[in-house]
Amino acid sequence: MKKVTLVLVVMLLAGNLFAQFAGVMRGQQTVTLPEGFKPASTNTFLSPYPAVNAQTKQALFKVVAPTANKVQVDLCNKKYDMTKDDKGVWTCTSDPQVVGFHYYAILIDGVAVMDRNSEAFFGSNWESSGIEIPEGPEGDYYRFNNTIPHGQIRSIYYWSDINGLERHINVYVPAEYEQQPNKRYPVLYLVHGWGEDENGWSNQGHMANIMDGLIAAGKAEPMIVVMPSGDIKTNPDVREAKGDVTQIFANNLVPYIDKTFRTKTDRQNRAMAGLSRGGFQTCMTVSANQDKFAWMGTFSGFFLRGDNSLDTAFNGLFKDADAFNKQMNLLYIGTGTEENSPKAQVEALKAKGIKNIVYSESQGTAHEWLTWRRALNEFAPLLFK
Amino acid sequence: MKKVTLVLVVMLLAGNLFAQFAGVMRGQQTVTLPEGFKPASTNTFLSPYPAVNAQTKQALFKVVAPTANKVQVDLCNKKYDMTKDDKGVWTCTSDPQVVGFHYYAILIDGVAVMDRNSEAFFGSNWESSGIEIPEGPEGDYYRFNNTIPHGQIRSIYYWSDINGLERHINVYVPAEYEQQPNKRYPVLYLVHGWGEDENGWSNQGHMANIMDGLIAAGKAEPMIVVMPSGDIKTNPDVREAKGDVTQIFANNLVPYIDKTFRTKTDRQNRAMAGLSRGGFQTCMTVSANQDKFAWMGTFSGFFLRGDNSLDTAFNGLFKDADAFNKQMNLLYIGTGTEENSPKAQVEALKAKGIKNIVYSESQGTAHEWLTWRRALNEFAPLLFK
Repeated sequence: MKKVTLVLVVMLLAGNLFAQFAGVMRGQQTVTLPEGFKPASTNTFLSPYPAVNAQTKQALFKVVAPTANKVQVDLCNKKYDMTKDDKGVWTCTSDPQVVGFHYYAILIDGVAVMDRNSEAFFGSNWESSGIEIPEGPEGDYYRFNNTIPHGQIRSIYYWSDINGLERHINVYVPAEYEQQPNKRYPVLYLVHGWGEDENGWSNQGHMANIMDGLIAAGKAEPMIVVMPSGDIKTNPDVREAKGDVTQIFANNLVPYIDKTFRTKTDRQNRAMAGLSRGGFQTCMTVSANQDKFAWMGTFSGFFLRGDNSLDTAFNGLFKDADAFNKQMNLLYIGTGTEENSPKAQVEALKAKGIKNIVYSESQGTAHEWLTWRRALNEFAPLLFK
Repeated sequence: MKKVTLVLVVMLLAGNLFAQFAGVMRGQQTVTLPEGFKPASTNTFLSPYPAVNAQTKQALFKVVAPTANKVQVDLCNKKYDMTKDDKGVWTCTSDPQVVGFHYYAILIDGVAVMDRNSEAFFGSNWESSGIEIPEGPEGDYYRFNNTIPHGQIRSIYYWSDINGLERHINVYVPAEYEQQPNKRYPVLYLVHGWGEDENGWSNQGHMANIMDGLIAAGKAEPMIVVMPSGDIKTNPDVREAKGDVTQIFANNLVPYIDKTFRTKTDRQNRAMAGLSRGGFQTCMTVSANQDKFAWMGTFSGFFLRGDNSLDTAFNGLFKDADAFNKQMNLLYIGTGTEENSPKAQVEALKAKGIKNIVYSESQGTAHEWLTWRRALNEFAPLLFK
């Protein structure tokens, strides 16, 4: 990389400053893609590949690797062998994919790496390639809409004395937030899944587009959405990890948010939800802090197994159905039809007398972001009403 | 990557939910690093490698690639051959490095890829690995300081009718911004360099830490800092790039910022600066919009060459020294001592009668982020006074 920068500097020195800048500004040379294919929206801004076909839902990959012996694409549990041309450029076309966002990797001689054509998305504890498979009308709710007002996502570090570290959060505030300087807002705490981080909901989930749309349409209350990290370890200066997220959320994060933003601070105006492991963390946090939360949601993350009976799971949250019904306004349980189903547990909870459950299945989706975009789009309108 | 997620799900199904979560929360197994080495602050939160030695300024790299034939690290214009152990783990230790941030790449059988141990930093038009070499007291100004108030970085999309695209910006607001609902602030527009993007100043540059420190110490006026993209092409839905950044900045971005934030809107309260190509864009934008800007800075990006005489460069900005001196409060020109020097041009400008120039050399640094962190730390205190 440094080499490229140096080449630029040398060219500057050679005096063709303006030609060079003009070239950069024009971007790279025009590339003709096969009929029906367009660059994926998840590509870096100069990359025509990977390209996606909105009709066939196929993805076309291209990797420049003249010195490699074997190159593959690993996408949605299938490895595709790529074919090399005489210039060392490898290509392949995938099977049709489910719409929405998928992580993928390139295998260079068997070593899994990120595709340099892709933006970076943190998943499985490393910076991954990602590809957005486009679709028709459904996708509009998670796309940028220029005709409505937009909220802001604020990047902030707060200090956790439990963790002993500064911790990064993203906080969505609705479009009206700054035009209503005396208004206070309810708060949704929204947690990512295993191997992802606090940027997942904004980058992979497009949560700002979803919330902007719901609020503009009057479907959801204007609310603040706080997206923390569900991991206790972080690395600014590499100090030791400590504490647990439930305590950090309840005792460091909630007070920080209430101090920093114009929030409604009673439990009727505080919700928490998460996907996968974040759903588990939601159940742990809400059950241990019922004085602080009155709404909860778990997307692909509701598990009651092993020695966790309905009576003992999550600090006994469900032991007394009447108490639960009195305390909690909503338990939303979302899942994809192509992943393990929590339906039996939901039925058991209902049979036990637990009310205010909304159970929802996302048709045709697995443990993936389309399931969770849909879940947020359904869940947020139910809150604070 | 998908494979890892699936393994997790399978383990959940197997019933050992809590053991799995506990394992994830504990992070990976303890790794013993060589004496004096610590994980780099630029690593993903679970990665002990690359490790850096604060005394020797060396970096120690480790790559797991059992199936590769040759693995190298490409760091600051030198390729280091890595050595493979019997488990397929490759290691090497670098020469001493300049403190601050450096991009690097891993070469797997000759193919340049990102190190999966590193956070992603957008440079040279792709998501790159980066490593922060720690240092002593000087670095404190760009590190997180828990004893002072912190501003927020806001992630926003604005619409450019010139570009025909939604464009992403990051906007820093000072810590006091929300506690002073009737106060208006001056604005600095701060642009990245070639191959980087609007996240460069916050991710690689640590600009929030720098501004927080300057403002808390009373050295800089509380100000809003707008960080736009200096490239015209972006890729949400892959529409055509059009327009030029100077016009987009002046006619779309400035009005959007003045509408959206509590800004002081006169030229005396608007500054622009940029690094490398962003310095060039600053000169182009300010010279064409002197009714809008009264302060300017260019960090490693002041070039007058070829047919650009002092009289014709940048829309004739310097042609009439008296007019320039009357119009512009500051022209800050920063550079590293280890890169091409603009000193001759600075002397020529002074000889021509151009005043209000501050010329500054960063000792021992090249075309790299420590040069630009230092420049911002010097430049911001000079503004709006």
